[in-house]
Amino acid sequence: MAEETGFSTMGRVLGDGSSAPNIGIGMLGYAFMGKAHSNAYKTIPYMMYPPPAHPVLERIAGRNEEGVRAAADRFGFRNYATDWRDVVNDPNVQILDNGGPNSIHLEPTLAAIELGKHVVCEKPLGRNPAESRRMWQAAENAGVKHMTAFNYRFVPAIVLARKLINDGAIGEIRHFRGQYSQEWLVDSNTPRLWRMDKESAGSGALGDLGAHTIDLARFLVGEPVAVNGRMSTFVSERPNPDDASKMEPVTVDDAYAALVEFDTGIIGTIEATRYANGRKNGNAFEINGSKGSLAFNIENLNELQVYILDSEPREANGFRSVSVTEQYHPYWDNWWPQGHIIGWEHTFVHELYHFLDCVTNDKPVGPWGATFEDGYKADVVAAAIAASAENNGARVEVKY
Amino acid sequence: MAEETGFSTMGRVLGDGSSAPNIGIGMLGYAFMGKAHSNAYKTIPYMMYPPPAHPVLERIAGRNEEGVRAAADRFGFRNYATDWRDVVNDPNVQILDNGGPNSIHLEPTLAAIELGKHVVCEKPLGRNPAESRRMWQAAENAGVKHMTAFNYRFVPAIVLARKLINDGAIGEIRHFRGQYSQEWLVDSNTPRLWRMDKESAGSGALGDLGAHTIDLARFLVGEPVAVNGRMSTFVSERPNPDDASKMEPVTVDDAYAALVEFDTGIIGTIEATRYANGRKNGNAFEINGSKGSLAFNIENLNELQVYILDSEPREANGFRSVSVTEQYHPYWDNWWPQGHIIGWEHTFVHELYHFLDCVTNDKPVGPWGATFEDGYKADVVAAAIAASAENNGARVEVKY
Amino acid sequence: MAEETGFSTMGRVLGDGSSAPNIGIGMLGYAFMGKAHSNAYKTIPYMMYPPPAHPVLERIAGRNEEGVRAAADRFGFRNYATDWRDVVNDPNVQILDNGGPNSIHLEPTLAAIELGKHVVCEKPLGRNPAESRRMWQAAENAGVKHMTAFNYRFVPAIVLARKLINDGAIGEIRHFRGQYSQEWLVDSNTPRLWRMDKESAGSGALGDLGAHTIDLARFLVGEPVAVNGRMSTFVSERPNPDDASKMEPVTVDDAYAALVEFDTGIIGTIEATRYANGRKNGNAFEINGSKGSLAFNIENLNELQVYILDSEPREANGFRSVSVTEQYHPYWDNWWPQGHIIGWEHTFVHELYHFLDCVTNDKPVGPWGATFEDGYKADVVAAAIAASAENNGARVEVKY
Amino acid sequence: MAEETGFSTMGRVLGDGSSAPNIGIGMLGYAFMGKAHSNAYKTIPYMMYPPPAHPVLERIAGRNEEGVRAAADRFGFRNYATDWRDVVNDPNVQILDNGGPNSIHLEPTLAAIELGKHVVCEKPLGRNPAESRRMWQAAENAGVKHMTAFNYRFVPAIVLARKLINDGAIGEIRHFRGQYSQEWLVDSNTPRLWRMDKESAGSGALGDLGAHTIDLARFLVGEPVAVNGRMSTFVSERPNPDDASKMEPVTVDDAYAALVEFDTGIIGTIEATRYANGRKNGNAFEINGSKGSLAFNIENLNELQVYILDSEPREANGFRSVSVTEQYHPYWDNWWPQGHIIGWEHTFVHELYHFLDCVTNDKPVGPWGATFEDGYKADVVAAAIAASAENNGARVEVKY
Repeated sequence: MAEETGFSTMGRVLGDGSSAPNIGIGMLGYAFMGKAHSNAYKTIPYMMYPPPAHPVLERIAGRNEEGVRAAADRFGFRNYATDWRDVVNDPNVQILDNGGPNSIHLEPTLAAIELGKHVVCEKPLGRNPAESRRMWQAAENAGVKHMTAFNYRFVPAIVLARKLINDGAIGEIRHFRGQYSQEWLVDSNTPRLWRMDKESAGSGALGDLGAHTIDLARFLVGEPVAVNGRMSTFVSERPNPDDASKMEPVTVDDAYAALVEFDTGIIGTIEATRYANGRKNGNAFEINGSKGSLAFNIENLNELQVYILDSEPREANGFRSVSVTEQYHPYWDNWWPQGHIIGWEHTFVHELYHFLDCVTNDKPVGPWGATFEDGYKADVVAAAIAASAENNGARVEVKY
Repeated sequence: MAEETGFSTMGRVLGDGSSAPNIGIGMLGYAFMGKAHSNAYKTIPYMMYPPPAHPVLERIAGRNEEGVRAAADRFGFRNYATDWRDVVNDPNVQILDNGGPNSIHLEPTLAAIELGKHVVCEKPLGRNPAESRRMWQAAENAGVKHMTAFNYRFVPAIVLARKLINDGAIGEIRHFRGQYSQEWLVDSNTPRLWRMDKESAGSGALGDLGAHTIDLARFLVGEPVAVNGRMSTFVSERPNPDDASKMEPVTVDDAYAALVEFDTGIIGTIEATRYANGRKNGNAFEINGSKGSLAFNIENLNELQVYILDSEPREANGFRSVSVTEQYHPYWDNWWPQGHIIGWEHTFVHELYHFLDCVTNDKPVGPWGATFEDGYKADVVAAAIAASAENNGARVEVKY
Repeated sequence: MAEETGFSTMGRVLGDGSSAPNIGIGMLGYAFMGKAHSNAYKTIPYMMYPPPAHPVLERIAGRNEEGVRAAADRFGFRNYATDWRDVVNDPNVQILDNGGPNSIHLEPTLAAIELGKHVVCEKPLGRNPAESRRMWQAAENAGVKHMTAFNYRFVPAIVLARKLINDGAIGEIRHFRGQYSQEWLVDSNTPRLWRMDKESAGSGALGDLGAHTIDLARFLVGEPVAVNGRMSTFVSERPNPDDASKMEPVTVDDAYAALVEFDTGIIGTIEATRYANGRKNGNAFEINGSKGSLAFNIENLNELQVYILDSEPREANGFRSVSVTEQYHPYWDNWWPQGHIIGWEHTFVHELYHFLDCVTNDKPVGPWGATFEDGYKADVVAAAIAASAENNGARVEVKY
Repeated sequence: MAEETGFSTMGRVLGDGSSAPNIGIGMLGYAFMGKAHSNAYKTIPYMMYPPPAHPVLERIAGRNEEGVRAAADRFGFRNYATDWRDVVNDPNVQILDNGGPNSIHLEPTLAAIELGKHVVCEKPLGRNPAESRRMWQAAENAGVKHMTAFNYRFVPAIVLARKLINDGAIGEIRHFRGQYSQEWLVDSNTPRLWRMDKESAGSGALGDLGAHTIDLARFLVGEPVAVNGRMSTFVSERPNPDDASKMEPVTVDDAYAALVEFDTGIIGTIEATRYANGRKNGNAFEINGSKGSLAFNIENLNELQVYILDSEPREANGFRSVSVTEQYHPYWDNWWPQGHIIGWEHTFVHELYHFLDCVTNDKPVGPWGATFEDGYKADVVAAAIAASAENNGARVEVKY
């Protein structure tokens, strides 16, 4: 199956891992994403066994020296820095793992590429398509491996969804419905973090949550060719995180919604919000095809809902709750007996395993992993939605 | 399918119903069951169309004259009575529908049988097996049609469950797990109704709720041959319904639990309670077989959960949520398009339709409907559980 | 509560119903809706007890004489007709119940109004806003009672949803997400019925399913002021229902999707399809407010999902699965003990009960019932979506 | 809350972990449990931050040299051995982590205790109560820390369940219903592993799965004082794992079911099976109390179902689906933002973190962790069930 699907753990040759090379990792950012990525690198060598390479945590950078030193100590990085250049230039660093705020995606990534280093960068890739296109072109021209960290492509249930679609199990696709609902901003006293500032983040729910949905739509359904989009901001100013008595403007969207025309002619609906009370991390989609349907929600990430039109016996047909935890399911032979579920963090274990495999064994990152091209295209679609929203939702073509 | 399954609406000859005979109904009880049964008789002629007969609501009896007169007026009975004998002896009454308290099941039923009338009686059939055996034997000897009103046999999803089992879809049965959870007695100030008095009710949760579970176990799995049972009473006295200042003893069980050994050798678990906070009418079961599983809960009565071991594609297998609302599902061609669900009351429409069909066309009530023999056997199993409970759960054989 | 909420069964004076007047019903259409409405009229007198009036099924019309005669016989109409004028002109008919195809909504409704008769008409009210506006204006001018049969307003869980919103339980509304997913056209061999012909139906999924969603949005959230819409037709021709060898064009939409701007400034998403494999009658919505959320799906119509932000204890908060079957829930004192669920057909029992009450006791149909004004407004919104779809989804204002 | 609840991550003093001591771990078994425990030790230092101690993986033992060497290499143990004595006697080993087959729980554990080492041992603690009592007494007398690895006590949702019960949130407990359903033996060609041999395993589903349920019952509800039990073996012989042509007898139970009388007088029902088609790892329970209810299933381990009788608003009450993933939930401040779920393996991270904390800081393992006393008591209850089953389910008292 390796040949057909390209995802890394299928059809692999088992061995003892002793001959796997070391590969040096340099990381930007030590908060949410830094923790998730570090955990993945530490877990891969013994859980995704044998590993294609042994990641060595060489150097991590952050602006706050005390914070980054503590993170280096905690996660076992050999060195730390307060200037990202020290990471990029470190000769032991072969892979730059860029998990900093969106505003520092571009420059360090380009610098690393120039030095011939491989780069995995968090999403959204750029704050706008121009930035992400520059990164993509640079990486392609330099011949380095590049991945946009759309980790949900590495959820076993979502890999299975794509496999079922590729196998024709649900026929011709007619509907895609993607929602990403969170609630963490319902309280208007939550401080104005960098994620609510257009300069640092580019956009709000659209770039942060919508980027995931757009990538899943492209991964599972096809290419968007046009969009009609609308955006909302519910709370226009919030307390300064350091001084709650000062209010600062929220300059990004709190929510977006869009109609998406795909190259196959079908119309999908996508949306995201940070104001859906009771929804914690509701990254959900439903796909209806001519022979079946699929439904998924990351809050229950080990389960895929599958409807197969021609099931037998006919009178006992219905959506199946598939526990994607069998040895023959994607990535699962690395984990536990069936029903012993994995969590959100494991998507990063799979994702970075895949990248290490691609780097070490010179395999293509796509189509199962998201390249910078995919990161760029997601940014183009998001920008089209934003442009449409500025024009009252008039149709805007997606032009890559 | 009519020949094989015996349930009435399958394979029927459609007609205009104009030649269907009238059949006179006499009813005992005008409260909960009286309302449900009356509604069924009124609905059958135009929804279960064409009906095998036109039920004519001849006479209804209840001890409170004002109450029974109002009920007769409301439901359209031609006459009413305060003495059940007036119903039984009414020459226009051909079917006695006995929905009174358990304490008046025996005498009126025997009297009706003696007059050659058909009888449908609410469950539990008797307050003890001796009572129910007398009714069964009398009805058999008289050659009248007799049915114990185990209405859940007429839920489309449960008919489908039996059909799937008969077809071998889930293989050899290994487990039966039946629960009936209600919450209506959690408040210790709820008055002591007749259902909490051993003299009137025979038993509590065991006879009221457990009887249903026992019947479903017999309907779906096989014959119990022995039981280990335990019973509980949580609130030992409750206010008199007419004078809340007087407390009266609760002389029945609030909950029971039992292990049931079936004739196939398997061990099932069954239980019921009236004290399960948050469970409204949770009549639920799960059956595991060598090739699949079934699960059901009456609070979601239009749905059956079905697992089929050999489903394709294998990687997309899981419990199927079957909406039992397709035209090819049991009874469904009488109702609405798929997904337009029916409610609890419709079980009575199906049940009494079946009984009218059996009476009019001289068909057997069993095995799809429950006869007095089934009512008797359920009472025997319940009595065995009670006997076991009195002996600390020691094994008691079920002897019909 | 009657005063505040206006829904009919709250705070009513109980009586014996003996003094309730007769009221003559004339009906157009005897298929799906004819069956559902007839059942409601027959059920109301004894289940919604005491009834405000006794509906008398006077006359029913349909084009096929054999068919309408059989329906009259089946449902107990005193007369039948093949010309709707005979129904409208029947002096015993006081209420016209218009459940015919969309193409015969206008003329008979106007004729009945002219004769001073009350009218309940199925949705969509007109094939276009001009038709529905004429009906609304005529009814208003004549002073007759008028109702558009948006039956989902009479689901207890949806009444509860509105009540909770009105009470402020979920705060200020920020999102409305409405979907109506069916699957009955997934097979391209399904014949081309009148519902797929623009002349007869006006539109497809938009008018049939979308009308319900639009009405629920207006009922629960507020007035749409602008839309961006898209429509799809997946199967462009289908077999003639009478001669499968002839293909006929499908001239309506199979699916639509729209972004809806409400008068409060929020952006909702709504959509419908007849091609969602595995979804039987999935009329679903989710509403997120600043203090809570609500979610509902008609396939599980007795349940409302409710999230209340400030629930105690805080560490045990989450969406609540509310079984809307308690005596204190809307309409429920007419039915059964808690957890003994009702079905889809009961929405019509509640709806027509409400209309009989309004007619008999001169009460306003709105805001709990949908008037012709509501029918008209739903048609205007649907027409705006269609107009937007013809212009690639450009924003179209909703102008009532 | 640390004082009251005793679970380790509450109320802790944050620091940088730099002063945490090293503590040497010796492990028996390198398969399923060895992998889960090793992963936990490797994860604790940076995820349960700051750790109470730095676990050093000193030595691992297994009978197959090739296998144990590979495991040592994979998980990073400094040494390996084929004789457990080499692990126990290793002077660098301070904690013995005994995850070998049940037959090697006793001897190595006693040897380690004799050397003053702390021991965590997998469940069931002994193959019979006599074995587990010896271990308990020895550990108590030696004054070492001892824990039976009932990992489900460390599921955040289950910790929350106990906390809610302790707080009185669901009132007085009236029902406990525990099931553990797996399906891995439905195929009669699955080989006869050591888990199906009485000599090696002690018992089958009872000791393997039932032990968990018994421990949860004791953790959440109270002490069993008597049981009525039944056991089943569905497939009496299975292929030899090394030579499929030879059949070997299955000498343990495939399933058990029991009624459990608790010291509070209530009767619980518990059962387990390895033959429940479609159930992967269905460790589930429901608890009904006088003021509320709780329900849980490990297949959805981040969620607890909670019903609180006195919730407001009353008309919106129902079971709440609680996502136990908030910063204020047990252990959660170590992990991710809300809704970013954790998996099964994380129970071991919490469990062994707790043990390291108890060892390092001389804290009591109970009542939140299970001591050898708890392991012993679970074995006594299991033995009582087995004894009852041998006597047709007659009541057997639980005598610790």
